[in-house]
Amino acid sequence: MSEERPALSHIDPSGAANMVDVGDKAVTDRIAVAEGRVVMEEATLALIESGNAKKGDVIGTARLAGIMAAKRTHELIPLCHALLLSKVAVEIEPDAGLPGLKVRATVRTTGQTGVEMEALTAVSVACLTIYDMAKAVDRGMRIEAIRLVEKDGGRSGHWQAA
Amino acid sequence: MSEERPALSHIDPSGAANMVDVGDKAVTDRIAVAEGRVVMEEATLALIESGNAKKGDVIGTARLAGIMAAKRTHELIPLCHALLLSKVAVEIEPDAGLPGLKVRATVRTTGQTGVEMEALTAVSVACLTIYDMAKAVDRGMRIEAIRLVEKDGGRSGHWQAA
Amino acid sequence: MSEERPALSHIDPSGAANMVDVGDKAVTDRIAVAEGRVVMEEATLALIESGNAKKGDVIGTARLAGIMAAKRTHELIPLCHALLLSKVAVEIEPDAGLPGLKVRATVRTTGQTGVEMEALTAVSVACLTIYDMAKAVDRGMRIEAIRLVEKDGGRSGHWQAA
Amino acid sequence: MSEERPALSHIDPSGAANMVDVGDKAVTDRIAVAEGRVVMEEATLALIESGNAKKGDVIGTARLAGIMAAKRTHELIPLCHALLLSKVAVEIEPDAGLPGLKVRATVRTTGQTGVEMEALTAVSVACLTIYDMAKAVDRGMRIEAIRLVEKDGGRSGHWQAA
Amino acid sequence: MSEERPALSHIDPSGAANMVDVGDKAVTDRIAVAEGRVVMEEATLALIESGNAKKGDVIGTARLAGIMAAKRTHELIPLCHALLLSKVAVEIEPDAGLPGLKVRATVRTTGQTGVEMEALTAVSVACLTIYDMAKAVDRGMRIEAIRLVEKDGGRSGHWQAA
Amino acid sequence: MSEERPALSHIDPSGAANMVDVGDKAVTDRIAVAEGRVVMEEATLALIESGNAKKGDVIGTARLAGIMAAKRTHELIPLCHALLLSKVAVEIEPDAGLPGLKVRATVRTTGQTGVEMEALTAVSVACLTIYDMAKAVDRGMRIEAIRLVEKDGGRSGHWQAA
Repeated sequence: MSEERPALSHIDPSGAANMVDVGDKAVTDRIAVAEGRVVMEEATLALIESGNAKKGDVIGTARLAGIMAAKRTHELIPLCHALLLSKVAVEIEPDAGLPGLKVRATVRTTGQTGVEMEALTAVSVACLTIYDMAKAVDRGMRIEAIRLVEKDGGRSGHWQAA
Repeated sequence: MSEERPALSHIDPSGAANMVDVGDKAVTDRIAVAEGRVVMEEATLALIESGNAKKGDVIGTARLAGIMAAKRTHELIPLCHALLLSKVAVEIEPDAGLPGLKVRATVRTTGQTGVEMEALTAVSVACLTIYDMAKAVDRGMRIEAIRLVEKDGGRSGHWQAA
Repeated sequence: MSEERPALSHIDPSGAANMVDVGDKAVTDRIAVAEGRVVMEEATLALIESGNAKKGDVIGTARLAGIMAAKRTHELIPLCHALLLSKVAVEIEPDAGLPGLKVRATVRTTGQTGVEMEALTAVSVACLTIYDMAKAVDRGMRIEAIRLVEKDGGRSGHWQAA
Repeated sequence: MSEERPALSHIDPSGAANMVDVGDKAVTDRIAVAEGRVVMEEATLALIESGNAKKGDVIGTARLAGIMAAKRTHELIPLCHALLLSKVAVEIEPDAGLPGLKVRATVRTTGQTGVEMEALTAVSVACLTIYDMAKAVDRGMRIEAIRLVEKDGGRSGHWQAA
Repeated sequence: MSEERPALSHIDPSGAANMVDVGDKAVTDRIAVAEGRVVMEEATLALIESGNAKKGDVIGTARLAGIMAAKRTHELIPLCHALLLSKVAVEIEPDAGLPGLKVRATVRTTGQTGVEMEALTAVSVACLTIYDMAKAVDRGMRIEAIRLVEKDGGRSGHWQAA
Repeated sequence: MSEERPALSHIDPSGAANMVDVGDKAVTDRIAVAEGRVVMEEATLALIESGNAKKGDVIGTARLAGIMAAKRTHELIPLCHALLLSKVAVEIEPDAGLPGLKVRATVRTTGQTGVEMEALTAVSVACLTIYDMAKAVDRGMRIEAIRLVEKDGGRSGHWQAA
C-alpha cells in the first residue's frame, strides 16, 4: 500500500483477508458505545409500551439478546478477535418522535484491541429482536442509524462521533 | 387480548415472552428478502472497491459472514425457531450515491415458519463485517435502512414493502 | 445384549457410545414436560419477588435462558439428536413453601425422536440462571428435583411421572 | 437500593438486568467446586456400572459433556462473563445408597470474577447426559442437590457450604 | 459456464460464493462414510492402547468429539446446509502397520442434501482430538488420508471410492 | 505413571480424561504453525485456479473458514483450553505437483498454553471447506499430511518438524 492513503487493516499486502496481529499492542482499558434505532408505526410502539408497562418483555428480551450477542461477536464477525468483556450494558428507550425504540450499548474490556464491534453487535441484535417480537403487527419496521458514538482506550485514544 | 387490537405474538396471555407454537402451521415453501446499507465516506468506498477489483476481500468476507450468520439466527434471536435453510444468498453492491455498499439477502426454506429473521440477520451481520473491515479508515460509518423487502409462503401469503 | 435385561440405548454391542440411529423411526408429534426447583432462603425469594413485581427481571431472564438453551440441547448433550422445536415454553413460579422458585418447561416437536432432553435442559439452565442472578445474596441455594413429568408421542406413547 | 438489605447484583438501579461490571475487580486465582447427583433405580445403576466396568462409556461421556459445557457457560447463562478456564475436572462416582451417581466438578481460573457458574454448569450437564444415556431404561430418574460446595479467590475469599 | 466442463457448485454465475439452493431437491435417505488416520510413533500407539485397555479414554474422547463435531458441520463449513442427522457413528481402531489409529465415520440423514461433509468433519475432529491427547509425547504425529469412501442417496445415487 | 515412559497429559492417575491444569504455567508469547494439503485431480485444480484468478472464492472462502474455526477450537476439541488468539493467518497456495492446494496456518497468543490445536484446526477446516466447494466435480479428493511444523513459547521452547 502506498503511503498516501490509509490501508484496510484486515487486508494483507497480498490482498488476502486475515486477522490483524494484535499481539504487540498494549493491554489497556477499552470502552465503546454504539447506538441504533427501530422505527415503527405509532400503534406498534404503543403496543410495546403497554406490554412493557405491565411485564417488560419486548424491551427486556431485546436487552438480553443484545448482551448475549456481544459475547459472541468474534464468532459472527470473521476477523474479529475474541475478548473477555468486563461489562456489557444495553439500554432501550421509547422515542415517540421516531416513533420507535432507541438502543444504546456500552461495552468495556481490558485487552489488546477495542470493543467497537461488540457494542455494534449488541445494538444490531437487540434491534433484530425487537423486530422479531413486533413483526406480527408491523412488518414494515426499519432498523436505522446503527453507529459508533464513542470509544476510548488503545493507541488511538478517545474518539467521539460528530 | 381484546379483539380490537393486534397482539404481540411472543407475549402470552400472562404477559410472559415465549416462543410461538408453530406445531400446527402448514409446512410450505417460504422465502424472504431483506436489505440494508452501510453509508461511508467516498474515499472509504473507493478503497474497498479498489481492493475488491483486485481481490474481492471486503465484499467477499462480508457476504460469507452474512450467510453463516443466517444459519445461526435462532441462537441469536431468543424466541426464533430453528429452521433448515435450503438457500441463503447475499449480494453486496457499491452505490456511489450513498456513498456506500448496499446489502441484499435472500433466504429460502420449506418449513412451518417464515425466514424474515434469517434474511434480516444475514444483512445485519454482513453490514457489521463491512464496518469491521473498514473501521480503521472510517470510524463514522453508519448502518442504515435494514428492512424486510419481500416475503412469501405461509398463511399470510405474499408481502412486499411499499 | 441378552433378552433378560434392558439395554442402554447409546451403548452399541461393542460397548462404544454412539448416537442411536433414529432414521427408521416414525415422524410423529412429540411433547415433553419437565420440572425442577431452586430452593433458597426466604429473604432471597422475597428479594426476587419484589424485584419481579416491579421489573420482572430475574424470572424473565431465567425463562429466556431456558428457552434459548433448549434450542442448543444437541450441542450440550453428546449423543442427542438435533431437532426443530415447534414450541418451547418455560414457566417459573414462586413457592413460599420451599421457599424458592418452581420451573416447568414444555417442549414440542414433530420428528423422529423425543424432546425429553430439551425440556430437562431448559429447566436446568433456567435454574442455573436463577442461581447466577441471586448468588450474590445467597450462595447456599440448591437446585432440586429436576425430572421428566410427562411425555407423549413416538413408539412408547404417553408417559406420566408417578 | 436501601442499605438494610442486600441487592441482586445483576439488577441495576433502574431495575434492568445487565452484566455486572467486573473491570475494576482484581485479577486473582479463583476456584469453585460444585456437586449434584442423579438418583435412579437400583437396576439402572447396576446396568451403568456393568457397562462401565467393561467400557466406561456412560460415566466417561457424562464427564466429557460436563467439561465441554463448563467452557460454554457464558453462552448459556445470559449475564455470566466469559473467562479463560485453566482447569475443569469432573468426577462421577456410583453411590449404592442413593442409588445413583454423584457428580463433582472443580473449576479454576485466574481472572476478575468467580467460576461458580462454570462448576455448576459442568455438574448440571454431566447429570443431564447421564439421564440421556439411561433414559431408555429408567425415565423416572431425578437430578438432585446441585449446589456450590466451596469457592476461593476474589474479594469474598474462602467459602464452604455448611 | 461452458458445457464442456463441470462447474464449482458454490460459485454462482457472477463468481460469488453462495449456498447452493437445495429447495427443489428430493428428500431422500442419505448416507456417507469417511475415513482418515493418525500416524504416530510406535511407542505413542502403545501408550494409547495401554491406556485404552484400562479406561478407553483417548479413543473414547476422540469418538465423542467426532460425533459432536458432525452435528456442528454447518457452523464450520461456510456454505454447508444444516441437516438433522439421524445417526452419527465413529469407529477408531489401532493399526500397528501405520503405526497409528484409523478413524471411520458413518452419517445418515433424511434430507435434501448429502452428508459427506458431516462424515469428513467427524473424522477430522476425531483425528485432531487424538493429536491433542497424545501431543505431549509425540509432536510429530500426522493426520493422513482423510477421504470419502462411500455415499448413497440423492440424485447421484451410490458412489464408492476406487 | 512410571518414570520410564512419558504420560498422556490428559489422562489423570485414575485413568479419567480431564483438562490439564495450566493455572501455574507462565504466561508467555506462543506461536504455532501447521500445514496440510488437499490432493485432487488436475482438472479440479485448474477449475479452482481459474475461478480464483477471476474471483478468488474457493481459496478466499477456505481461508476465512480456517480463521473462524481456529477461534472455536476449544469448543471442538474436548480437553482444549480457550485462549485469546492475537493472530490467525491462513495461506493457501496451488501446487501443480500434487496436484492440489497447500494450506498453512499461523496462530499466535499470549497465554498459559500453546496454540498447536488452533493451528491444526484452522488447517483442517480450511481443507474441509476446499473439499466442500469442489466436491461436485471431484468426490475423490483426499486431505493429506496435516501436521505441526513449528511451535515456540512455553516451557518446551522452540520446536520444528524434522
